[in-house]
Amino acid sequence: MQLDTIAAISTPMGEGAIAIVRLSGEQAIEIAGRLFQGVGGKKLTDVASHTIHYGHLIDPRTDEVAEEVMVSVMKGPKTFTKEDVVEINCHGGLVSVNRVLQLVLNAGARLADPGEFTKRAFLNGRIDLSQAEAVMDLIRAKTDRAMNVALGQMEGRLSRLISRLRQEILETLAHVEVNIDYPEYDDVEEMTHQLLIEKAQYVRDEIKKLLQTSQQGKILREGLSTVIVGRPNVGKSSLLNSLVHENKAIVTDIPGTTRDVIEEYVNVRGVPLRLLDTAGIRETEDIVERIGVERSRQVLKEADLLLLVLNYADDLTVEDENIFKAVEGMDVIVIVNKTDLPQKIDLERVKELAKDHKLVTTSLLEDVGVDELEEAIAALFFAGSIEAGDMTYVSNSRHIALLNQSLYSIEEAITNVQAGVPIDIVQIDLTRTWELLGEIIGESVHESLIDQLFSQFCLGK
Amino acid sequence: MQLDTIAAISTPMGEGAIAIVRLSGEQAIEIAGRLFQGVGGKKLTDVASHTIHYGHLIDPRTDEVAEEVMVSVMKGPKTFTKEDVVEINCHGGLVSVNRVLQLVLNAGARLADPGEFTKRAFLNGRIDLSQAEAVMDLIRAKTDRAMNVALGQMEGRLSRLISRLRQEILETLAHVEVNIDYPEYDDVEEMTHQLLIEKAQYVRDEIKKLLQTSQQGKILREGLSTVIVGRPNVGKSSLLNSLVHENKAIVTDIPGTTRDVIEEYVNVRGVPLRLLDTAGIRETEDIVERIGVERSRQVLKEADLLLLVLNYADDLTVEDENIFKAVEGMDVIVIVNKTDLPQKIDLERVKELAKDHKLVTTSLLEDVGVDELEEAIAALFFAGSIEAGDMTYVSNSRHIALLNQSLYSIEEAITNVQAGVPIDIVQIDLTRTWELLGEIIGESVHESLIDQLFSQFCLGK
Repeated sequence: MQLDTIAAISTPMGEGAIAIVRLSGEQAIEIAGRLFQGVGGKKLTDVASHTIHYGHLIDPRTDEVAEEVMVSVMKGPKTFTKEDVVEINCHGGLVSVNRVLQLVLNAGARLADPGEFTKRAFLNGRIDLSQAEAVMDLIRAKTDRAMNVALGQMEGRLSRLISRLRQEILETLAHVEVNIDYPEYDDVEEMTHQLLIEKAQYVRDEIKKLLQTSQQGKILREGLSTVIVGRPNVGKSSLLNSLVHENKAIVTDIPGTTRDVIEEYVNVRGVPLRLLDTAGIRETEDIVERIGVERSRQVLKEADLLLLVLNYADDLTVEDENIFKAVEGMDVIVIVNKTDLPQKIDLERVKELAKDHKLVTTSLLEDVGVDELEEAIAALFFAGSIEAGDMTYVSNSRHIALLNQSLYSIEEAITNVQAGVPIDIVQIDLTRTWELLGEIIGESVHESLIDQLFSQFCLGK
Repeated sequence: MQLDTIAAISTPMGEGAIAIVRLSGEQAIEIAGRLFQGVGGKKLTDVASHTIHYGHLIDPRTDEVAEEVMVSVMKGPKTFTKEDVVEINCHGGLVSVNRVLQLVLNAGARLADPGEFTKRAFLNGRIDLSQAEAVMDLIRAKTDRAMNVALGQMEGRLSRLISRLRQEILETLAHVEVNIDYPEYDDVEEMTHQLLIEKAQYVRDEIKKLLQTSQQGKILREGLSTVIVGRPNVGKSSLLNSLVHENKAIVTDIPGTTRDVIEEYVNVRGVPLRLLDTAGIRETEDIVERIGVERSRQVLKEADLLLLVLNYADDLTVEDENIFKAVEGMDVIVIVNKTDLPQKIDLERVKELAKDHKLVTTSLLEDVGVDELEEAIAALFFAGSIEAGDMTYVSNSRHIALLNQSLYSIEEAITNVQAGVPIDIVQIDLTRTWELLGEIIGESVHESLIDQLFSQFCLGK
């Protein structure tokens, strides 16, 4: 299927050697061809598929050279969208790539919506919905492991698992049909009940297994929001710098008129930590002053992990004890820092306050204890055993919600069969489970949901 | 010429739909081929030049799929570097593109130095030095006009001009040779003197013309460093926002462990303003408080343009007068803001203080006077007449320095001829001019200079 022709900048914004403007749709080659002046008068509409052509884009309003380009022509259906695709590689400056985009839009292409290329790949049947969602996860992946999860999902690993479960349900439903059609045979009913329970339990167990991966999956995908908390001068900045220094931070910011740096990621043994409010730490070390302030409480609440820093060379204070109270019931690692100085802290009292939380002593100044801390972080969330790349993780909130609903629905079916509820009621539960699982891979999904899903993509994908 | 194989990420860092890892060199195709698994076992070493291939990169250590890719194979000499070039298009996430780069490096490529691809294009004779420099200017261009200047230079416009001048000098030198070889013919000497002066004057005039474009060229290339200055609460933030809002700011930042936003560009009628210290304005409006502080004075000194803002609805203060003193002798536009409020300022006194500086009254709140301000900015630097795109601007400091030296040297030649200095001395001046002009396009340039030039490039270009 060829839809109208869309275009967008497909490389990240910024200065780089190369930028790409991508076109997809019925007129992609024609539109690019109108602007392109190749060596020896070569026409893009005449070239073979999957070939690359050097030349210039000419601005039709001035007949002047607008950019030096390499144009890749790929004819559908063997393309990302299954449509005709043209990629214009130009020099990677902001002005240059915007100029190329503008030329292409003036020549008849429409600016693509976020995610519209991938949406077309989905609508044209090249990938299913869970695969499409993985495309974006792959781009946003902050660690190798997160990328492997996304890659596996994109290659259809989750899709195949879900499809298999749906097939099981479909076969079971067929048996139920037989039972409804021939209710006079008692032994069929007997067999059906038996089979129903077995099949339903099998599906339930598989869904449960998938859901068990979801906590880790979500962490891998979204990162572990982490807050470093402690009184002034205990070493919060040092801890931050130490984590960043050892693991290369990825600063994610949104360029625009404001300068807010939104998030900072640190990869600790495969666990992506999303460090919250690190700007605050870097600039003023005043987080504790602000404890009690609504916003700080909010930051604490949002955290998956708290790194509570205490000063080994100072007495415990009321402030310290208040922090322990504020973080009660959360995932906390207690760090007693500055062991390079003489001890003043009452370690027994710290242990009392820490309760079951992991306690690590460090001298960040002398780089002592950081390894142990990193191990503690990894152990807290992956119980020491991060699986190899070949495991299927569920990581997407939409998938998790649908799996939970499927689980509920298949459990209903099991309960009902066991309670002797009429088989056509059970049929409804099974059909519902089948539909819910289908939504994960995009079968029987409402159009507005699809629109909404793809709108979260980045431009040009 | 094929050198060892280099590789780098050639798209800007960040999240985008597509990223590119580029390889160039003798083994580019072989190295990519070792990792690539195409559909139906296709081998990259067997494919035609300038073709695109879908497949996966396999990590040889694990035999697992590392990434889904499109690989472009381009065989030299019809490539950017004149060597074999492979471009691996992968999903545009940080992890993804770094993984692809890592695989390629592990498979035998060397990480490219900044600018090394363009350097090879130069070393392999595809472009000259001024064209190579234009490649980077093109990427960094902040306005359409700056891009046109770079594009013209990249297409060889400056190179052709310089080559023509060198040719003139060479022909003149040939005449001088005749004069030296046959000194016994008086009329030859007569003619040679005449011709020498004419030719040398022509070359001098052309160099002068080029140098006349250099101020504007530099502004187009590097932007006009601009500082907004004024007491608190006169509307500095409003002015900044107004300029940014109307013209779309380009925020250039360097991602890393620090969060300093380095520069912010605003395109005012084709003039790129580089707004300095805007962070200070945005955050605290305290520039004036810091006047007198060394750093603020430094910022003022570095500025090409000062926008001095006064409050229409308030009396002039000692602070205001101090600011006028601090900016004496610089390019200043005086802005009297808040004309929506009742006048309190003594406009006659303002005019006295402003002297020859352009004075604009605005109500930024009501969007009055902004057009006039923008016209004033453009007029100040381009005297109202910005040339069309077909003009050759000299914009690069290295070129400007060499042109100035050439000018000096050709003027020496003229003076010497006129003073009747022996012709073989004049020959030295002419040869020197010829060499200096040659350095602009990279003939007779020292290797260390070349290394240094390309090291200022971005990675992957």
